[in-house]
Amino acid sequence: MEKLVALVIIKFAFGLLLNAQDFNDLAKTPPMGWNSWNTFHCDINEEIIKEVADAFVTKGLKDVGFEYIIIDDCWQVERDENGTLVADPKRFPSGIKSIAEYVHALGLKFGIYSDAGKKTCMERPGSRGHEYQDARTFAAWGVDYLKYDWCNSGQQNPYESYAVMSDALKECGRPVVFSICEWGTNEPWTWAKDIGHLWRISGDIRPCWDCTGERACLGVMNIVDIAVEKKLSTYAGPGHWNDPDMLEVGNPGLSDVENKSHFSLWAMMAAPLMLGNDVRNMSQQTIDLLTNKEVIAINQDKAGKQCYRFRDFGDTEIYRKHLQETNGIQQDAFLLLNRGNEPKKISLYLEPQAEVRDLWNKKNLGKLNDSRFEAVVEPHDCVLLKVSGLNFHN
Amino acid sequence: MEKLVALVIIKFAFGLLLNAQDFNDLAKTPPMGWNSWNTFHCDINEEIIKEVADAFVTKGLKDVGFEYIIIDDCWQVERDENGTLVADPKRFPSGIKSIAEYVHALGLKFGIYSDAGKKTCMERPGSRGHEYQDARTFAAWGVDYLKYDWCNSGQQNPYESYAVMSDALKECGRPVVFSICEWGTNEPWTWAKDIGHLWRISGDIRPCWDCTGERACLGVMNIVDIAVEKKLSTYAGPGHWNDPDMLEVGNPGLSDVENKSHFSLWAMMAAPLMLGNDVRNMSQQTIDLLTNKEVIAINQDKAGKQCYRFRDFGDTEIYRKHLQETNGIQQDAFLLLNRGNEPKKISLYLEPQAEVRDLWNKKNLGKLNDSRFEAVVEPHDCVLLKVSGLNFHN
Repeated sequence: MEKLVALVIIKFAFGLLLNAQDFNDLAKTPPMGWNSWNTFHCDINEEIIKEVADAFVTKGLKDVGFEYIIIDDCWQVERDENGTLVADPKRFPSGIKSIAEYVHALGLKFGIYSDAGKKTCMERPGSRGHEYQDARTFAAWGVDYLKYDWCNSGQQNPYESYAVMSDALKECGRPVVFSICEWGTNEPWTWAKDIGHLWRISGDIRPCWDCTGERACLGVMNIVDIAVEKKLSTYAGPGHWNDPDMLEVGNPGLSDVENKSHFSLWAMMAAPLMLGNDVRNMSQQTIDLLTNKEVIAINQDKAGKQCYRFRDFGDTEIYRKHLQETNGIQQDAFLLLNRGNEPKKISLYLEPQAEVRDLWNKKNLGKLNDSRFEAVVEPHDCVLLKVSGLNFHN
Repeated sequence: MEKLVALVIIKFAFGLLLNAQDFNDLAKTPPMGWNSWNTFHCDINEEIIKEVADAFVTKGLKDVGFEYIIIDDCWQVERDENGTLVADPKRFPSGIKSIAEYVHALGLKFGIYSDAGKKTCMERPGSRGHEYQDARTFAAWGVDYLKYDWCNSGQQNPYESYAVMSDALKECGRPVVFSICEWGTNEPWTWAKDIGHLWRISGDIRPCWDCTGERACLGVMNIVDIAVEKKLSTYAGPGHWNDPDMLEVGNPGLSDVENKSHFSLWAMMAAPLMLGNDVRNMSQQTIDLLTNKEVIAINQDKAGKQCYRFRDFGDTEIYRKHLQETNGIQQDAFLLLNRGNEPKKISLYLEPQAEVRDLWNKKNLGKLNDSRFEAVVEPHDCVLLKVSGLNFHN
């Protein structure tokens, strides 16, 4: 009998160790998926979630690597007498576990949302003081990803608040990607690497290009500027990512070229690619954009480097992302962006031996005359190049 | 069926409200009891706890108001697969619930210990991330009092860390006195009033009179000096008390007169009176000291005022505690203390109409010649007076 107890204890202890290892091995490339918030806010239900999962398969999103289906705030309404979170019985009558099973049956992964404070942003029960119990609940339901918000956290210490849920997830018996949604106020890039897989660097994104001047509004370029100003690229790497928030691609507010630049910038930033549009109803243009394998490959590059602003000419900018070497040959991606309101010529000087491919036009440009790439870029449009064989690193 | 559900919900909601009210109504006078730490540290077991409870009855401690029997650190060894705290099966083979029932059957109350950090001071599992679950466990066991320590709390915010357990206790379905053991570092007297019933003002007490010069050592007088220097008396009142730590009365390290002064000072400070000695084996002198009803009445006075240092003559000091009026007549307690190492005469000037009683000598002194009380007080000894009919307030 005592031997049996000892064996159980050993098994349990090894289980924990293995899970902690699993935890660290998650999200080696930026996680890709869909989150309910940007389109649906609280107006969610299990049909929508299942239809989105179906669309992942039918629209080709699964084929190019999108895998997490994540329910954001408002799925939960209360706690039962044992303190267990209770899903909204009207909107999720089958229960969360059943939805997770549906998602898993499609070969996809399932994510959910909670909050480090007493209540979530939408005043639903938060996980404060219930962290281990909630982690066990999520594991029992088949959750693979947790987005963990920072509303109603009062004077809580951010590191400790996220560390306790991280510890709980490491012990919950299931690998769960941990998304730290602290909005960047307390510089999570300096403390979140070992407790989570991604951390928000700013407030919520809005479906607009550049909100400068509008209070409490962050557009695509405002968030990119935050990443550049705070020099965040050095903090990203396999298993730990700066999160410039979910994508607004395909949502009203952004033009087609803005969608393209938004997606290109997120790819270059090694950002988690979380779709925020209604993927059940997408234009062919949006589908084509989101399923460009070569652009996604830039994002998912195994080296896990985040781009930096390589050249800044004012209205035009060039971003550079170092990629994994191929057979000892240096690989780079360059994004030439016109953030201004007039067409502008942008030039990029490379080296004679460099081979260039245009990823949006899907064209090999080979070696360039004068080692120079040059293009007139429309307002808010961009050119995304993959360059092979460079020697220079700055 | 829906009506039934609604009724259950209403009952539940009212239950919570009533409990929150109960919570605020607890500890209207300083809690009195015994805690295992000062004598036994980790060397505790259920026989000791039960024998201490027996001694409360047989030695007359219960009769004078001592009621809480509190197990400090080291009762817990791990958490089970559901995250529930597990008591040491060797030291507490009957389980905590059974001990609580034993204590309750004697007409006493039962208390336990946990920690706001990941681990307790003795590296047992802490309550961080398990607060609501632990509160439910304690309630199910019949716990009436929780001492909640601050070890291994890292960068946790103290207010938030104690607030979450406070919230959990308010919802646990049982009135539980909440003892905030944060050691005074973050000035809990400024934030703990609404979340707990008592808060430590310093590090751990040691069984000595005055440890000045010794590092990390706090004697009786060192803690009194902290209370005076930080002007803590204004923060005490019914339901919320400054806690200068448990008593060392009857433990090796203090002389008989030091025991007497220690107990008198704690009575004057409206301090929680938590015995820390082995009450199963007390000298008659210790029993007499701890069961002096008139001294305890000073501590338990309904006005809930903490004494302040009324006069400071260097080696000698006078403390004053305002008591509840009796039939419109002002009541005060005065403690004349010689903290020095030579006998000293101490004089207290009152008013002609004041009636004086010596509480340790149990003697009415009536009105005084020249309105003056005067006594030669031995080193570390004291005189405790109750004075009726004064007009002056300063």
